[in-house]
Amino acid sequence: MCPHRLMPLSAGVRVGDELQCGYHGMRFAISGACTLAPGQTHIPPTACVRSFPLVERHGLLWIWMGNRERADVDLIPDIHWNDHPEWTPSRGYHHVKADFRLTVDNLMDLGHESWVHLRTIGQDEEECIPNYPLKVNVLGEGLIRALRQMPNIEPPPFFAMVLDHYGRINRWQTAVSLAPSICMTDFGVYPVGTSPDDAYRSHVLHLLTPETESTTHYFWSVARNRRLEDDDLTQEIGKAITQTFDEDAVVLEIQQTQLEKYGGSVPRVAMKVDEAPIRARRLLEALVKRENEDPEFVYRPPLMIDDSTPELEMI
Amino acid sequence: MCPHRLMPLSAGVRVGDELQCGYHGMRFAISGACTLAPGQTHIPPTACVRSFPLVERHGLLWIWMGNRERADVDLIPDIHWNDHPEWTPSRGYHHVKADFRLTVDNLMDLGHESWVHLRTIGQDEEECIPNYPLKVNVLGEGLIRALRQMPNIEPPPFFAMVLDHYGRINRWQTAVSLAPSICMTDFGVYPVGTSPDDAYRSHVLHLLTPETESTTHYFWSVARNRRLEDDDLTQEIGKAITQTFDEDAVVLEIQQTQLEKYGGSVPRVAMKVDEAPIRARRLLEALVKRENEDPEFVYRPPLMIDDSTPELEMI
Amino acid sequence: MCPHRLMPLSAGVRVGDELQCGYHGMRFAISGACTLAPGQTHIPPTACVRSFPLVERHGLLWIWMGNRERADVDLIPDIHWNDHPEWTPSRGYHHVKADFRLTVDNLMDLGHESWVHLRTIGQDEEECIPNYPLKVNVLGEGLIRALRQMPNIEPPPFFAMVLDHYGRINRWQTAVSLAPSICMTDFGVYPVGTSPDDAYRSHVLHLLTPETESTTHYFWSVARNRRLEDDDLTQEIGKAITQTFDEDAVVLEIQQTQLEKYGGSVPRVAMKVDEAPIRARRLLEALVKRENEDPEFVYRPPLMIDDSTPELEMI
Repeated sequence: MCPHRLMPLSAGVRVGDELQCGYHGMRFAISGACTLAPGQTHIPPTACVRSFPLVERHGLLWIWMGNRERADVDLIPDIHWNDHPEWTPSRGYHHVKADFRLTVDNLMDLGHESWVHLRTIGQDEEECIPNYPLKVNVLGEGLIRALRQMPNIEPPPFFAMVLDHYGRINRWQTAVSLAPSICMTDFGVYPVGTSPDDAYRSHVLHLLTPETESTTHYFWSVARNRRLEDDDLTQEIGKAITQTFDEDAVVLEIQQTQLEKYGGSVPRVAMKVDEAPIRARRLLEALVKRENEDPEFVYRPPLMIDDSTPELEMI
Repeated sequence: MCPHRLMPLSAGVRVGDELQCGYHGMRFAISGACTLAPGQTHIPPTACVRSFPLVERHGLLWIWMGNRERADVDLIPDIHWNDHPEWTPSRGYHHVKADFRLTVDNLMDLGHESWVHLRTIGQDEEECIPNYPLKVNVLGEGLIRALRQMPNIEPPPFFAMVLDHYGRINRWQTAVSLAPSICMTDFGVYPVGTSPDDAYRSHVLHLLTPETESTTHYFWSVARNRRLEDDDLTQEIGKAITQTFDEDAVVLEIQQTQLEKYGGSVPRVAMKVDEAPIRARRLLEALVKRENEDPEFVYRPPLMIDDSTPELEMI
Repeated sequence: MCPHRLMPLSAGVRVGDELQCGYHGMRFAISGACTLAPGQTHIPPTACVRSFPLVERHGLLWIWMGNRERADVDLIPDIHWNDHPEWTPSRGYHHVKADFRLTVDNLMDLGHESWVHLRTIGQDEEECIPNYPLKVNVLGEGLIRALRQMPNIEPPPFFAMVLDHYGRINRWQTAVSLAPSICMTDFGVYPVGTSPDDAYRSHVLHLLTPETESTTHYFWSVARNRRLEDDDLTQEIGKAITQTFDEDAVVLEIQQTQLEKYGGSVPRVAMKVDEAPIRARRLLEALVKRENEDPEFVYRPPLMIDDSTPELEMI
């Protein structure tokens, strides 16, 4: 915001590489220094704004809000799927009125699809997703993965549509959480009797930017490995995912409201579906604790998220 | 709410006689016990919801939110007019953003009609309702009645319509309050020169369920004793009463807002119209005091509300 | 509000010179005394409302909310331009969700026009207003004036329209603040080469009534000295000024929100454009201090606001 009268500079205009305040026309360079104050030649040195290290990578802007000297672009994880020629993304954004950790819970919980997303990606009750075993593994500091394999199932409407195949399929799901707030849902589907190497795959990137303690900027990108040039499909996937995340947002915002009303945390009673969410929260809490206890501690997240095709035990 | 992640079960679905949560599909029986947790066979005993004794009577659901062992259906007052072959009800609901006691005040105050309801049931100023004497009597524990007789008056539009008679009428009003929150307005009108036994009568039941300290679920039912099969009249009365209670709601919500702003209670200055409201509040306060002082105290409200035709002194 | 059940009397009706409450029909005289309480003959003496000295002058209502005995109509400043045969006003009202002092700041700051009002009265950047010198003078107790002269400039769209002259003009601006909350913007424009005595002049009266600490009733009136009978122009000016003040309101409300979020006051860094606003605030603060320190102190504002044509140094 402008150091003069607190106007957000986002409400001003960009002039070249500078920002101009919409109230009195003061201009600021990328460094934060004021370069022009209409009506005067001397510019007080306190008339400057704070600037932050910012870099564009993988089609996203990465901002470093901590100690400027510790900003290190080499700590940015490789999530190239959002911006890579072998993958085509459908992208979107949700403003979620809930703590980002409730969204991480939801993304790491591969058990709610049947109920929240019945009309989109959920299986029907006969083949209820939570009945398939789930393996949860910690893969590195702050990195956890849950894997579920569902062999020989009826395809939910969304998968039947993208495969253009209405017979039975094999399906796997991988839910990944990289602390503090990057998640990836990697899933693959292929018709029974075909090779997993030819699977239709999607890497759904969930890039959560906490806004306040109870609201989250939720940027998402669904990158697929098939029919890369099919713009109609890109649109259709975008629409379907928007609808799916709309359904999730309802559940998240209700939970947030209930927590504000009743206090405490969730889950109140730990069920099996909570294994991965709970372990992901513990990884995060451990990192927070270390950072609080050791001022020299630097969290170095694993840079690569393994997306190799899981060994299929199921066909 | 679901004991797992606090989702309101009202946001789920009913499956047979059980409720299914909309997040992970957990199911709960009428007792509150969890009967199904998808993905696991063992159900932790803490995964249960609180249940309440509930019974349907007189076309209404009665819930007992106190100590379960004290629930006693024989304490439910007889308000059969809502669901009885000799009476035809027009029913409705208002969500009122005010303390339920302000609504009781309003219902027991037979003096505001001329001003708040001028266009509907109010008399015009020449025959201003508060100028007719009002008799207030305590009829039992928690039960109070105010009676006003208005002989030989011009009919307000609503009564002229239901009587299909535009000449002068005799009218009486009875306002009853049964602590804590059942009110009944019993009124009768009949053309001057005819018998009160043939009066058109309405029993207006006001069934107030406090939601919070400052909001009330207001269920109402206007049961009449004439033209029982006349569905058009049932609709018309429903519309007219909705409009009348809309007018009251405005006044109640303004009072609530003013009380939150300025503190204290109403009336600030006691006027004659406040006699019944003030006495009804005192009955309620006395019951609250007894309950607070004596843990064994059980409030046994009078079961019958007398609706006999008042002795007419007026023709 | 009604002393009975706190209903705002503004929600009632006027009956002759009395106000009648919309709940129970109680009536109140100009003195505040209750003159009628339906249903009773004795009226309790506490059933009265507070009344305030009020007078109509210069087309406005002036209320005195302090000690009644100190009310003195002779302390009302002469702002006759709002209601005088030699001036034609365009009048309007804005409800501004900001501290009235932020509006005074804005009105005394003759430097924001280029940026906030670029499409209406702002000069373009080449002739950026803050680059013209500004003279600020204290003219009396609580009275301050800032003057800026802009010779031989391109006319902004609004002035070209009212002058019906699209060539270069001379322009002056006078911003006046009379503590606590009367401001006047006196401006004049005339084509280069003509006499300032024939200038098109406007006295823009900004009459700020604080509603709460963070909201303001902003009554305004733009009185002009030319084309007095031109009703279309009156309308056009009203529209243009509404749009201009809409633009200001956005800036003021953002500042209010930012101050509530971050605390403190503005300006955070004093710039040259803040000279008049800061001095106007100091005059106000000095008066508040004197009033707090001396219970006998009576602020006697200068009654006349000088609007003589400034000596032009510029042609």
